[in-house]
Amino acid sequence: MRTVFVGISVDGFIARRDGGLDFLPAEPEDHGFDELLASVDALVMGRATFETVLGFGGDWPYGDKRVVVLSSQPLDLSAARGGRVEQMSGEPAEIVARLAASGAVNLYIDGGVTVQRFLRAGQVDRLVLTRVPVLIGDGLPLFGSLPHDVRLRHVATRSFPSGLVQTEYALGL
Amino acid sequence: MRTVFVGISVDGFIARRDGGLDFLPAEPEDHGFDELLASVDALVMGRATFETVLGFGGDWPYGDKRVVVLSSQPLDLSAARGGRVEQMSGEPAEIVARLAASGAVNLYIDGGVTVQRFLRAGQVDRLVLTRVPVLIGDGLPLFGSLPHDVRLRHVATRSFPSGLVQTEYALGL
Repeated sequence: MRTVFVGISVDGFIARRDGGLDFLPAEPEDHGFDELLASVDALVMGRATFETVLGFGGDWPYGDKRVVVLSSQPLDLSAARGGRVEQMSGEPAEIVARLAASGAVNLYIDGGVTVQRFLRAGQVDRLVLTRVPVLIGDGLPLFGSLPHDVRLRHVATRSFPSGLVQTEYALGL
Repeated sequence: MRTVFVGISVDGFIARRDGGLDFLPAEPEDHGFDELLASVDALVMGRATFETVLGFGGDWPYGDKRVVVLSSQPLDLSAARGGRVEQMSGEPAEIVARLAASGAVNLYIDGGVTVQRFLRAGQVDRLVLTRVPVLIGDGLPLFGSLPHDVRLRHVATRSFPSGLVQTEYALGL
């Protein structure tokens, strides 16, 4: 199971142009992130997301969860203090196959560019979108071009007191 | 009350680049369109949407509901046989004021360009998005740039057997 789990403005952005996330709600509310993270074997993200996470400062947020950063350029993985971070590069299907061979089958696919690449390559099984009730007008879009339509199957939708609406879709039907 | 009520792919498109709507569900299912149309005093749309509706052929779909087509260019309104169609042009606030002066206070704002203009001008009170469970990758986006963030208040969300998810938001808070 390869899962995308992401917060997104109603107009489709996961961050502002500069990576800013100030439009996300500040109040603590459990949207299922911890539960998802606990359920996966590895988290897969791109270089930009990795650097954004490092830029938050503070402790490495993923504990000892296996984290795979996708980049074909050199990366300073030691910046993720206390984390279990490795680097890979290649096409999404290759990454998935290599991770499966090493025992990591349940993956959390994160970050705008990486999500778009995995969607284009048909390497996403589940899409969990948490819509934040705001229009920001511009930013980093979650979705990009596709070689063909991708049909989704609606699994469940729930709303939260803060106004967030979370919808789970299954892919690959 | 100025309402936007629109079907939109999960990746944010109201139509394909050529105006095609084939990704919308074919099965009959009541999503509240007739109820909304009955509740408004007038429907406001842009030239492109007007021409798309005419292109469907068949009967004029809005009965004797007052329809205002926004365009600063000449339009052949007679093509809307049996319809009650008039033309206006101007800024969204002017349109709203002129319509209010003629007794039309509850408006259905339709069409991509027109929705974007009215959102930018702060002339939308209610946004009802019906998300169609498909990613189409490219098309005519519902949302565009904004002068500043637009906060939304979540009113209600419901899902349908077809997998459509409809969320109502209030604006102008």
